[in-house]
Amino acid sequence: MSGTLYGVGLGPGDPELLTVKAVRVLQAVPVVSFFAKAGRRGNARAILDGWLTPVQTEEPLYYPVTTEIPVGEDAYTEALRGFYAEAAERLAAHLSAGRDVALASEGDPLFYGSFMHLYVRLRDRFPTQIIPGVPSMAGCWAAAGLPMTWGDDTLTILAGTQPQSDLTAKLQTSEAAVIMKVGRNLPKIRAALADAGRLAAAVYVARGTMAGQEVCPLTAKTDDTAPYFSLVLVPGNGRRP
Amino acid sequence: MSGTLYGVGLGPGDPELLTVKAVRVLQAVPVVSFFAKAGRRGNARAILDGWLTPVQTEEPLYYPVTTEIPVGEDAYTEALRGFYAEAAERLAAHLSAGRDVALASEGDPLFYGSFMHLYVRLRDRFPTQIIPGVPSMAGCWAAAGLPMTWGDDTLTILAGTQPQSDLTAKLQTSEAAVIMKVGRNLPKIRAALADAGRLAAAVYVARGTMAGQEVCPLTAKTDDTAPYFSLVLVPGNGRRP
Repeated sequence: MSGTLYGVGLGPGDPELLTVKAVRVLQAVPVVSFFAKAGRRGNARAILDGWLTPVQTEEPLYYPVTTEIPVGEDAYTEALRGFYAEAAERLAAHLSAGRDVALASEGDPLFYGSFMHLYVRLRDRFPTQIIPGVPSMAGCWAAAGLPMTWGDDTLTILAGTQPQSDLTAKLQTSEAAVIMKVGRNLPKIRAALADAGRLAAAVYVARGTMAGQEVCPLTAKTDDTAPYFSLVLVPGNGRRP
Repeated sequence: MSGTLYGVGLGPGDPELLTVKAVRVLQAVPVVSFFAKAGRRGNARAILDGWLTPVQTEEPLYYPVTTEIPVGEDAYTEALRGFYAEAAERLAAHLSAGRDVALASEGDPLFYGSFMHLYVRLRDRFPTQIIPGVPSMAGCWAAAGLPMTWGDDTLTILAGTQPQSDLTAKLQTSEAAVIMKVGRNLPKIRAALADAGRLAAAVYVARGTMAGQEVCPLTAKTDDTAPYFSLVLVPGNGRRP
């Protein structure tokens, strides 16, 4: 009998924002796996800290590269492909031996999650189950106390890595927006928001629900330094009886 | 001392998909409130069933209308406005008396949640705190085992109530999409997906994570009957090393 691969959403950062189901599965499986930057413990492992038990085997999966090689280059793709293939085989060894594996994923496993790269490599070989999580964006708009979508508002979720003209065009056709992957793209994001006439409504959130959380109107942020765990939120303003 | 108003996300339907924090707050407050259709117990109350304790006061808030009057009509807006104002005062009475109130919200409280209509009426008068939840769409894509967004994919969340031409245009400029409020809009949604060349990729999910869950390719669904708790998902196909 093969083990089951669980994709477990860890939520936005506050360890209390795991679901009851996530906690049950994470404590029941013999093997818990998670991604981290090489040489770091990682944010996923930090969220897990209070939930794991001493008898569980941990399988950390360390990225060979993160920001050292530009994402578009072949060397980046090759490095990641080899890493995902090898990581999948490490988990497959447990699953083949009948051991259930929970692969913990920040936010939700199927929403921009690295989990997906192993899921597509393993789902035809082993039983799988997904446990959805609170996405990071929901943690961020909760931290900001910002109602995001009303009535029939469209919400568009954008990567800050996209070209400025694409960001502007998509902001112009959507009542509400979330811009992820802010980091070094912040000046471009500001410009796209200004072009679309949405800068005044934008809210900046960094490390939402975590220690060191920052929330402010984007226009009140005076520098262009933003961590990876930051978002820009543009709330909708639809039907409000 | 005033009580605190908690906006508590209940997640997509499976009671185990409440967060640990939601359960803690729901069990700690003296008053638990939720929305329901008049004459029904309601889905929110059903999710709460195993979590409430006998000593808690329940404050059900019954909608005066749901589908009896078209959403665009003045009579609908007036009926809802009066209802929200009165509901806010019912909760305000508890809060003024120092009793904390948890207003339970299916999915996430700030993502198309009725909670927001009371939140904007009460947040300047009382302390508030938002506990984010797993949105219904994340429960649905987990139920479908469908990776939704990869790399820099844009995800657009649309209401099926929008005009067909708007749906088509937005589907054409987004790698991934979620179409909510399906119900009687299903034929129009099919047509918009076909026009945008996305029909073959679309997945239909009804009652995701709940009893009676249905998941199938939209092209395999032979009728046009869809409940309110149904979604159409169009997965992205971005960077996959």
